[in-house]
Amino acid sequence: MAVYFDNAATTPVSDGVKEAFISALSLYGNPSSLHGAGSAARNAMEQARHTLASLAGCKEEEFYFTASGTEANNTAIFGIMARKAKQCRRVVLTDSEHPSVTECVRALEKNGARVVLIPTKGGAVDMGTLEKALSKKTALVCVMAVNNETGALYDLKGVRSLIDKTGCGAHLHCDAVQAFMKTPGTKRLLRSADTVALSAHKLHAPRGIGALIVKNGVSLPPYLYGGGQERGMRSGTENVAGAVAFATAASEYTEEKLATVSAVRNRIIDNLQKAGNVGFNIPAEHIEGILNISLYGIKSETALNCLSTEGIYISASSACSARKGVSSVLTAYGLEREGLLSALRIGISPYNTVEEADALCDALIRARERYGRI
Amino acid sequence: MAVYFDNAATTPVSDGVKEAFISALSLYGNPSSLHGAGSAARNAMEQARHTLASLAGCKEEEFYFTASGTEANNTAIFGIMARKAKQCRRVVLTDSEHPSVTECVRALEKNGARVVLIPTKGGAVDMGTLEKALSKKTALVCVMAVNNETGALYDLKGVRSLIDKTGCGAHLHCDAVQAFMKTPGTKRLLRSADTVALSAHKLHAPRGIGALIVKNGVSLPPYLYGGGQERGMRSGTENVAGAVAFATAASEYTEEKLATVSAVRNRIIDNLQKAGNVGFNIPAEHIEGILNISLYGIKSETALNCLSTEGIYISASSACSARKGVSSVLTAYGLEREGLLSALRIGISPYNTVEEADALCDALIRARERYGRI
Repeated sequence: MAVYFDNAATTPVSDGVKEAFISALSLYGNPSSLHGAGSAARNAMEQARHTLASLAGCKEEEFYFTASGTEANNTAIFGIMARKAKQCRRVVLTDSEHPSVTECVRALEKNGARVVLIPTKGGAVDMGTLEKALSKKTALVCVMAVNNETGALYDLKGVRSLIDKTGCGAHLHCDAVQAFMKTPGTKRLLRSADTVALSAHKLHAPRGIGALIVKNGVSLPPYLYGGGQERGMRSGTENVAGAVAFATAASEYTEEKLATVSAVRNRIIDNLQKAGNVGFNIPAEHIEGILNISLYGIKSETALNCLSTEGIYISASSACSARKGVSSVLTAYGLEREGLLSALRIGISPYNTVEEADALCDALIRARERYGRI
Repeated sequence: MAVYFDNAATTPVSDGVKEAFISALSLYGNPSSLHGAGSAARNAMEQARHTLASLAGCKEEEFYFTASGTEANNTAIFGIMARKAKQCRRVVLTDSEHPSVTECVRALEKNGARVVLIPTKGGAVDMGTLEKALSKKTALVCVMAVNNETGALYDLKGVRSLIDKTGCGAHLHCDAVQAFMKTPGTKRLLRSADTVALSAHKLHAPRGIGALIVKNGVSLPPYLYGGGQERGMRSGTENVAGAVAFATAASEYTEEKLATVSAVRNRIIDNLQKAGNVGFNIPAEHIEGILNISLYGIKSETALNCLSTEGIYISASSACSARKGVSSVLTAYGLEREGLLSALRIGISPYNTVEEADALCDALIRARERYGRI
């Protein structure tokens, strides 16, 4: 049996979600069709929206399904900038956003937007730099809710307060892909942003479904044009089974499940502290499901390859940046060379066990003993 | 048991596809991850790409997965126009394209593109008008392979020849969502276009997966920015199970299956011809899976609602235009008022039977006898 600790990259579909998903596949109608098969599909879709909106602390009409968190980020970022005036082209974002945010902003920059990066050293948004970056020229502020490599929980509420205090009128977009249901304060957290991107496959749901929350009063053009599904905001035949799976997965992510995550995390930390010579790259504010460590003495790639041969899976940085060398996020966090080269991301899910935690730590220590060379 | 004849809107997942899909859900790794779970997922994804590219008659590196046909159309249309010079802003398209093409073009028009509509009366592209519309100013020509309401098979090869003959250099984009695997000449057909949009859920695969074929030599920017998946063309964590299901569904669509579609279609036509007072809106060139009729004497909506109460599902026009009143596609086809008001689309799949064809026709005739009022 494989031991999977790369749950920040993506998660296996849980049994409960799988059952709901397969069952919803039998809702074969097109929700836009006017017949009985269509309305059965439509009802399931709206029930899923109801469940998810309630968990995210928004209204149903603010909740739009997309195919991914990436699509949600693209829709929000390009959409907001399309709505802003020519003299308002400044985009402010943290220096540790996900590529589906940074690459959109880079594309905007090529078209004349001015970009300001806000440091997140130690896993906290530098509020002083942020405040200076806010002016009437600031169109958009992007701050993720939880960092995908360090697990840092950024102070969205503080960012919202700053934006409101300056009265600059900037739009606050939040990539909450790693945050949704992963912290007890999800609802409160997400309420600070004007638009929020979510994804299902980090919650043990299948890939191919995500969402964008657009707060009432925010005007956003569609990004995918066509049949006018999702009340005109997002065209494409509705992925009913995906939506049902997403809702089931989010409902399954109870506080009890979060407690299991904490228990497994603590076991890993205990084990590695006993082993010694391990750096814990833990921001003051963080979620429990992402644990970034530096296993001093062995290169990240060597360690993860070694574990992979034993069927134990972790990662060096995010999957979306896996092939790009040293992590810019961990550099922004403040890791020095040795810490960077030996950094490992452990993504913990409620389905991991303390026995798996032990197996992981044993394998890590053995790998270092055998292949450590730095 | 329901009788489903709305297969041009979407299709139930077939047993074979369902099995492959569920099995592929266990490939839980992120294809971008460097460990064993990642490479297992990556291999399945590439195998699916190989199968589909081979069926579509293109190279693997020309085949990019998307979440839908709509996304593929948006990616191609906006992408091509982003690459064209300012003096080259004419977009030529038929007057019966799918909304995921027309709505993109409408958005371009608001940004200064000049739009020329080509008539498709009787289900054929008006080549004379098309030729006149082609010049050095023509950036993009959009011609769907198969019309989603009439089943008309448009002469893509002829369109390609005209573009080549004039030497205008326009890009030919083809929405082939209703064509792929539905006609024995699919490969030959698709070879004419520079970019081709495909979708899985019209082939008894789940929703949430589609593809864009980009012929070698065509330069297209990404539409969804992020982690750089699909060789930078389309970001977002890969929907491995969806890709496997798509490949399985396309592989299942054999010529034998097409023969079943023909048999069911012929039975419906025979039955309705015997009943009399039915218009058959059949273009000279068409696929067998879409049959558009005018059931004179009863309004489309009345007929489909009446059938729906019996668990028999058909549509009046496309699901993507279901709420927009009289069909612009059928108007373009040349239907007069009476034919338009009583038009019905029957979408036939290989899983329909002649018994279902009989049940459908009986129900249609009974509905007209009972509720006919036009």
